[in-house]
Amino acid sequence: MGGQVTHGVAIAGCGLIGQKRAKALRGAKVVACADVLRERAEALAHATGATASGDWREIVKRDDVSIVIVATTNDLLAEITIAALAAGKHVLVEKPAARSVAEIDEVIAAQNKSGCLVHVGFNHRYHPALRKAQLLVEQGEAGEMMFVRGRYGHGGRIGYDREWRADPAVAGGGELIDQGVHLIDLARLFVGDFRDVRGYARTYFWDMPVDDNAFMLLTSHAGQTAFLHASSTEWKNLFSFEIYGRTAKLHAEGLGGSYGLERLSFFRMLPEMGPPETTIWEYPGADDSWGLELDEFLDDIAQHRQPAASLADARAALMVVESIYQESRR
Amino acid sequence: MGGQVTHGVAIAGCGLIGQKRAKALRGAKVVACADVLRERAEALAHATGATASGDWREIVKRDDVSIVIVATTNDLLAEITIAALAAGKHVLVEKPAARSVAEIDEVIAAQNKSGCLVHVGFNHRYHPALRKAQLLVEQGEAGEMMFVRGRYGHGGRIGYDREWRADPAVAGGGELIDQGVHLIDLARLFVGDFRDVRGYARTYFWDMPVDDNAFMLLTSHAGQTAFLHASSTEWKNLFSFEIYGRTAKLHAEGLGGSYGLERLSFFRMLPEMGPPETTIWEYPGADDSWGLELDEFLDDIAQHRQPAASLADARAALMVVESIYQESRR
Amino acid sequence: MGGQVTHGVAIAGCGLIGQKRAKALRGAKVVACADVLRERAEALAHATGATASGDWREIVKRDDVSIVIVATTNDLLAEITIAALAAGKHVLVEKPAARSVAEIDEVIAAQNKSGCLVHVGFNHRYHPALRKAQLLVEQGEAGEMMFVRGRYGHGGRIGYDREWRADPAVAGGGELIDQGVHLIDLARLFVGDFRDVRGYARTYFWDMPVDDNAFMLLTSHAGQTAFLHASSTEWKNLFSFEIYGRTAKLHAEGLGGSYGLERLSFFRMLPEMGPPETTIWEYPGADDSWGLELDEFLDDIAQHRQPAASLADARAALMVVESIYQESRR
Amino acid sequence: MGGQVTHGVAIAGCGLIGQKRAKALRGAKVVACADVLRERAEALAHATGATASGDWREIVKRDDVSIVIVATTNDLLAEITIAALAAGKHVLVEKPAARSVAEIDEVIAAQNKSGCLVHVGFNHRYHPALRKAQLLVEQGEAGEMMFVRGRYGHGGRIGYDREWRADPAVAGGGELIDQGVHLIDLARLFVGDFRDVRGYARTYFWDMPVDDNAFMLLTSHAGQTAFLHASSTEWKNLFSFEIYGRTAKLHAEGLGGSYGLERLSFFRMLPEMGPPETTIWEYPGADDSWGLELDEFLDDIAQHRQPAASLADARAALMVVESIYQESRR
Repeated sequence: MGGQVTHGVAIAGCGLIGQKRAKALRGAKVVACADVLRERAEALAHATGATASGDWREIVKRDDVSIVIVATTNDLLAEITIAALAAGKHVLVEKPAARSVAEIDEVIAAQNKSGCLVHVGFNHRYHPALRKAQLLVEQGEAGEMMFVRGRYGHGGRIGYDREWRADPAVAGGGELIDQGVHLIDLARLFVGDFRDVRGYARTYFWDMPVDDNAFMLLTSHAGQTAFLHASSTEWKNLFSFEIYGRTAKLHAEGLGGSYGLERLSFFRMLPEMGPPETTIWEYPGADDSWGLELDEFLDDIAQHRQPAASLADARAALMVVESIYQESRR
Repeated sequence: MGGQVTHGVAIAGCGLIGQKRAKALRGAKVVACADVLRERAEALAHATGATASGDWREIVKRDDVSIVIVATTNDLLAEITIAALAAGKHVLVEKPAARSVAEIDEVIAAQNKSGCLVHVGFNHRYHPALRKAQLLVEQGEAGEMMFVRGRYGHGGRIGYDREWRADPAVAGGGELIDQGVHLIDLARLFVGDFRDVRGYARTYFWDMPVDDNAFMLLTSHAGQTAFLHASSTEWKNLFSFEIYGRTAKLHAEGLGGSYGLERLSFFRMLPEMGPPETTIWEYPGADDSWGLELDEFLDDIAQHRQPAASLADARAALMVVESIYQESRR
Repeated sequence: MGGQVTHGVAIAGCGLIGQKRAKALRGAKVVACADVLRERAEALAHATGATASGDWREIVKRDDVSIVIVATTNDLLAEITIAALAAGKHVLVEKPAARSVAEIDEVIAAQNKSGCLVHVGFNHRYHPALRKAQLLVEQGEAGEMMFVRGRYGHGGRIGYDREWRADPAVAGGGELIDQGVHLIDLARLFVGDFRDVRGYARTYFWDMPVDDNAFMLLTSHAGQTAFLHASSTEWKNLFSFEIYGRTAKLHAEGLGGSYGLERLSFFRMLPEMGPPETTIWEYPGADDSWGLELDEFLDDIAQHRQPAASLADARAALMVVESIYQESRR
Repeated sequence: MGGQVTHGVAIAGCGLIGQKRAKALRGAKVVACADVLRERAEALAHATGATASGDWREIVKRDDVSIVIVATTNDLLAEITIAALAAGKHVLVEKPAARSVAEIDEVIAAQNKSGCLVHVGFNHRYHPALRKAQLLVEQGEAGEMMFVRGRYGHGGRIGYDREWRADPAVAGGGELIDQGVHLIDLARLFVGDFRDVRGYARTYFWDMPVDDNAFMLLTSHAGQTAFLHASSTEWKNLFSFEIYGRTAKLHAEGLGGSYGLERLSFFRMLPEMGPPETTIWEYPGADDSWGLELDEFLDDIAQHRQPAASLADARAALMVVESIYQESRR
């Protein structure tokens, strides 16, 4: 593989997600880490052989950096991405990529000017059950899409309503902009963009000024329905995404760990109808979605190819989010 | 048990449901059966020792009949119920009890005049998993209700779109008025009536002038959400009803047979939060919901007590149904 | 298909199994039925358009009969099979085909003399999960066989110990010769005959002079182990058969109905070991094993081919049964 | 809790199990750690605030130590336990506590002389599903015990046959003495000691001079059967322990992590028999068996009470192990 470029990577935000990204990097090297909690930056720097900093501004412009991973709280995602693009770096920014449509439009403008690539971290697309589902749908195994149904939630933890996700200024919203955008993004993968958005973001349990439950009833341009619910009062961690075509149902469940064993069930209607032909794939191995996503982004860069999960995708998801927040305020 | 009244029962409609009712009768005797398909009436009459007729009018007024079970197609439910009430009979009428609010209002008027009792056959309330769920909620085990989520569907069968359920004049609607009303009724059990009704009834697969999928997003007077989907393109038969309180989740699944083993899962949040304390009850025995429902109705009659599943409940469900049909037509 | 012979079938024994066989016959016609309970013979004759008899001797020699199905209690299986063979008929005899090795040796002698075919009703071989397992093993997907593990049991019913299966003279044994022979037969399919037989037949619960539990520890000629347990005190009906090769595990579970959904799980070891690649096939449809088995037997007859499940297979299973009964008596 | 003794603990063997024990200690303090790999001792010493050593002899006699935890390879378990007892320390020694009956007899002699307590680390007894099962059996919920069935196995990892567990001199045996002793110990909990031991220890897959599969067919003094299989070629990690009484079946499954969610199923026979009343408890939380076991041992010490899992229990399990190794060599 002589001649291959090895990218230097800067990681802004060294919390749980930043650490996962660092660990999942194959074929690129972390050279600099920043976090407002300097100890956190130092711990990750120590583990990766990188330089630590307490300020992201110090790392995004370094000459030895060609890729910036932005894994901060939501309020900094757009700002750091714009700065990195201005410095000529490619960017992997975690979802939701920005707190609002207005904010992401600035990022899109910055990208257009820079010519660099931006991948948005919709990592659920890279889970094996969902990849297999996409493949089966592309191969026509499910027939024309009719609707999708998604349920995604967790039960929080003590003090959850005092964390940054509970602060609208930092997070840009609550459960809808947190786990909800994953459901919206997955739904768009299967039925495309939405012409009609109904739904409610509601606060039932947590003592916080953002929503802890988001119910969505979306209609695609082709008339397909996405029926989605994200919850931070799910009590038993749950991920379930059901995809209905004219000839089959696909059901992705679990994300490993506390979300349960990941599996895809494929229910194929027989010509005589009645009970379907049923095949299930289980994925007991460790979650490799982070690694696959980064590999793909490195390939995108090598081939000057637009990332599959783009700023346009994040913008489309944020359009739904904003619309539901508006409907809920009425 | 000397002195106990043994009721004579007339069954109007001797299809699958009429037969199930006849089989589940304990402590009452079928004396007359009617069906437009006279052979069907004769078969059931033969099995029960009753008299057969091709015309329901002949059986609802008989002196030896004190209870009429109405298990016909939807177009006759109201008409027969009204006739039976006029003849001074108690009535068990299958859901949805009428095709519309206007129609059920006539039944309610007839009942008010007659003083007889009417039980509406929302038999899902009597499934053991849902009874256990109601009991746990009543005992405060789940805390204050926040929302419910229901998914109910089947995959149809060849020619489904040529059956009476596909004819709006006979059925009064499609999947929404068929399986959907069960979900609405169960949701009302846990969160009460709805102040706001959103939803769509859509036709994705079957070649018929009624809906094969109904998506509902309902808000109760107390602000709780019911997020419900009924489908006749579910491909793999499914019944799932999830109930969320502030301190627990209850999940009823399966109805036996092709809907899978019936079970109730109880996820109780611990004070320290994290993974819930989990208890599951499974009900591998035969479905006895029909028998329990009839037993209760016989007790209602004996005690002059209003049935738990009343015409008012059916009316409330039909209000939701009509509202969604109207919203969908817009 | 002009010119195809349509076989006339006589059914001796019109209980549950005889009825299932009659219902599963495709491409052959029941012409005569016999049962010691004449009403039972008449009911099946009525359903199939056949002639009824209270004596099996009257039906096995009929000119219009070319196949005899023997579905009686165990004490008559050999006698009727021998008589049918003497009359020049092909025979499908239910497992265990005889009560002892000595008895089956007489049947084998009769078959050798007659030139007719005998299929032994080891119908579990024809369940889809086990057919799929056999296919995968034949294709080398599991590698060289190491061992199999089988658990099969039911919970009986009130009065079980007063039924014919509890009478050693009629049944030839207890749980071992009843459900146990299925496990032995399946084990032989995967690892061949046994050079060493250990095990116990024990009576723990039922008040009867035969075993209600049989534990088997068998060693094949190639040194593979079969670890098998059959029980009529299983309380929750269970069928589980696990097959271990050097590169994969196959797990067949459930037989439908009260034994639970039938499925085959395929756990394939990856070169890097760790969690296996997992694929599961579920079979929610009705049990068609009876029909497939009869179809194969009709093909065997048409092609003058020895049935796959032969008297030799039944003899091999009975050798294990007798050996364990002897060891248990010591 | 003034006046409570806080024990100083020495840990001999700082591998995976030693680390788990250290982490699970509540109400006692690690003061010294030893491991032949000095770095491993140092890492654990660093994490616990203890002193590190490369030689266990240096730590078992320290004045500030009152409890020694022995978590080394099997060849040192007895030697270190004896030395610790001689120094007047209480000992928690991991299973199997010794490599043979002869070796454990020396330990028992040392304990008798010392008057100190020894707990053997049969931690599976402390898993919540098995504790609940014991409780239900003690309360008579399952009736008189009839038999138990256990399956326990893992799929190894590359190089497994080069690890210490594959060396008979170090491990004292293979899969039987490793996972097998857990099954034997659990079986004894429910049916007591064994009067008859059959079984085989076999090597099917791994290139090693010890067994990778152990099949056991044990008969208790009261005639109950234990039907047990331990495997290091299980491919998909599995723990299953089924307990059959005259009125119920109890099924403990899973140990968390790669062994799957831990659960106990309770199938209670109804007087009318048929499908059982079924209750399932799931334990999604982290495995606390190590902590509970240590808590109990600290209580044992405080109350001068013999530990529930004693050297006598380990000896009884080793008797079965040796008997099967002898039978297998024949």
